[in-house]
Amino acid sequence: MMYITRRETFNAAHRLFRPEWDDEKNSEVFGKCSNPQWHGHNYVLYVTVKGEVDDHTGFVINLKDLSRIIQSRVIERLDHKNINLEVDFMQGRLASTENLAIGIWEQLEKPIQDKGAQLHCIRVEETEKNYVSYYG
Amino acid sequence: MMYITRRETFNAAHRLFRPEWDDEKNSEVFGKCSNPQWHGHNYVLYVTVKGEVDDHTGFVINLKDLSRIIQSRVIERLDHKNINLEVDFMQGRLASTENLAIGIWEQLEKPIQDKGAQLHCIRVEETEKNYVSYYG
Amino acid sequence: MMYITRRETFNAAHRLFRPEWDDEKNSEVFGKCSNPQWHGHNYVLYVTVKGEVDDHTGFVINLKDLSRIIQSRVIERLDHKNINLEVDFMQGRLASTENLAIGIWEQLEKPIQDKGAQLHCIRVEETEKNYVSYYG
Amino acid sequence: MMYITRRETFNAAHRLFRPEWDDEKNSEVFGKCSNPQWHGHNYVLYVTVKGEVDDHTGFVINLKDLSRIIQSRVIERLDHKNINLEVDFMQGRLASTENLAIGIWEQLEKPIQDKGAQLHCIRVEETEKNYVSYYG
Amino acid sequence: MMYITRRETFNAAHRLFRPEWDDEKNSEVFGKCSNPQWHGHNYVLYVTVKGEVDDHTGFVINLKDLSRIIQSRVIERLDHKNINLEVDFMQGRLASTENLAIGIWEQLEKPIQDKGAQLHCIRVEETEKNYVSYYG
Amino acid sequence: MMYITRRETFNAAHRLFRPEWDDEKNSEVFGKCSNPQWHGHNYVLYVTVKGEVDDHTGFVINLKDLSRIIQSRVIERLDHKNINLEVDFMQGRLASTENLAIGIWEQLEKPIQDKGAQLHCIRVEETEKNYVSYYG
Repeated sequence: MMYITRRETFNAAHRLFRPEWDDEKNSEVFGKCSNPQWHGHNYVLYVTVKGEVDDHTGFVINLKDLSRIIQSRVIERLDHKNINLEVDFMQGRLASTENLAIGIWEQLEKPIQDKGAQLHCIRVEETEKNYVSYYG
Repeated sequence: MMYITRRETFNAAHRLFRPEWDDEKNSEVFGKCSNPQWHGHNYVLYVTVKGEVDDHTGFVINLKDLSRIIQSRVIERLDHKNINLEVDFMQGRLASTENLAIGIWEQLEKPIQDKGAQLHCIRVEETEKNYVSYYG
Repeated sequence: MMYITRRETFNAAHRLFRPEWDDEKNSEVFGKCSNPQWHGHNYVLYVTVKGEVDDHTGFVINLKDLSRIIQSRVIERLDHKNINLEVDFMQGRLASTENLAIGIWEQLEKPIQDKGAQLHCIRVEETEKNYVSYYG
Repeated sequence: MMYITRRETFNAAHRLFRPEWDDEKNSEVFGKCSNPQWHGHNYVLYVTVKGEVDDHTGFVINLKDLSRIIQSRVIERLDHKNINLEVDFMQGRLASTENLAIGIWEQLEKPIQDKGAQLHCIRVEETEKNYVSYYG
Repeated sequence: MMYITRRETFNAAHRLFRPEWDDEKNSEVFGKCSNPQWHGHNYVLYVTVKGEVDDHTGFVINLKDLSRIIQSRVIERLDHKNINLEVDFMQGRLASTENLAIGIWEQLEKPIQDKGAQLHCIRVEETEKNYVSYYG
Repeated sequence: MMYITRRETFNAAHRLFRPEWDDEKNSEVFGKCSNPQWHGHNYVLYVTVKGEVDDHTGFVINLKDLSRIIQSRVIERLDHKNINLEVDFMQGRLASTENLAIGIWEQLEKPIQDKGAQLHCIRVEETEKNYVSYYG
């Protein structure tokens, strides 16, 4: 079993808040991340795929295929976007890094399987001081 | 002459656009950076100060002082904010990295002088692929 | 199950040696790391916590809480300190990176549990060329 | 159980291609990585070793030993070399990052065992955008 | 005067040698960098451009233009190539990092001028331990 | 004129204090950096040399020579040492990053000149948040 990881980046705006909570409660739980005027990040995404090494290519998955899948399914929908307002797979979800990792997993699991490999881990770095890892 | 540099970070939302241009023209010049729903970045700020090394302290400037100035004059006003809407010193200016560097310079020049040193360079990194440097 | 990681840094002095060994033996095993006059490092600490994502907050653990725990239990006791002489939880232990990771685990396990999450991994980087990971 | 990781680097040339395929087929599968005139990389290698922490040394393995093993068994044979033409343990194998990780594993497993520890993971970074991890 | 820098990467093979010197002399001067079977690097290129900030765009130069120029004039000719054999602007020149910086400068100076800005610095990193800077 | 930079690292212990000041005064000026039990850093050193590119070698200076000079004159005297107690060229000087840069400059200026090049800049990073640059 071999694991291969692709690193991609995207920039986006977001805010953390629950519509059913008032401003005070949102501010208490989410601090300055609940700013109604938005803030944003340079997100770093690591997609790890596992599988057998193919005898003919020496690859778990062709990185051209993996990169194309990540671009079309994830980066194009997130890059330079507002996560709360514009990203379909994040609607109805708090725009936390944890939920973003789950949302990205759901976009990538099936297309990677169609290429004969298996999605292993989604890692999303929000800042240089924190990141989440999700294994499905 | 010695140069000392302090690195700080802040997260913010912004968009590039000119109100007197229509959407098409804004999109042509600024591309996806003109998205009306905002996007954002983890900005990295390098503040370089120059001066003589003080015989008693071995310092150009005490980093505690420099850090306090940068925090109160720049980071607190930019971090987790919308640069277009919420940052007073960016009002009336396009929210480009170039103009942000000029704006930050103007906030820091005087207070650093008051500590007996001289602001030398403001460097702002917007993404890991581009940054600007401004020498006043 | 979701994993979230916080990165923190601290600077400290230490030396590697066993008091019951003579200088020659200490030097043979620990090399220049046994220098009696001390040396030091910019340590980088990664604390990984696992748990379910909370429906209301979208968090495994609130990073404000996690950061406060790491600051008060670990960073304040290690930063700008001599690990051999001044850090209570390292007394009676060789100041190796391995033992430091175990010591830090012991400080964090309980307070993180009290917040409803579970400590998963302590990673300590001593230099850019080596780090240890400890899973309890 | 404790895990310790050593980071090393080497520079090498390689190309991806199968001799039994014609140029068109090689180019279709491997893209510009099949360039017959070679290209190259600054490879980054992470070797992770696991074991119990020794009571006398506080170490899983003495890093001087680990470093010497990696140098003599891997770095000296790969650094500033052509992986396809000059590296004995890569003969008969496509010079993919996956196969390189397997080849490196085979060189290190036994000598690390002889030092009383166990090889856990070989991670090879080919560029800043992709890396593989192999656990044997 | 404002300075803006764009970071790009390319992978290439090369070797250092003088055809009029024998192998011994080449090896004495260039060490393992003269390996006749080639080696290679992940080169990192920083292109710094200076100019006035445009009132309408807030830019020294539109990064879309700068990026397109660097791609077409430099990256496409160097990426996944053999610098000694395949890069026209390096013919007749030793493939040192210094000469590579000069060669890249010559490709970029004019097209950047045509966009109303001025090339200021070419920085080429060959490994994480060394880089050159050239100011024309 | 071409500039070439070499990056090296060393680990050392130090403290900031003036012997003629009492503990209170030292603590007021230097904060936790004045801890009498020492602390330490992973210092990063960048040595920049300038000169003409040699027609025969394509080099400003042979990096093997530059590296050997930095190793013997600087790294061996600083690495795993106590800067205040054990480094001859820092005796009688406050162990600030500024003074360290001056001290390192003095060790390197002459031997680099003897190789036909000119020392241009010493940059010392004490932590990832601050560094100094000295141009002689």
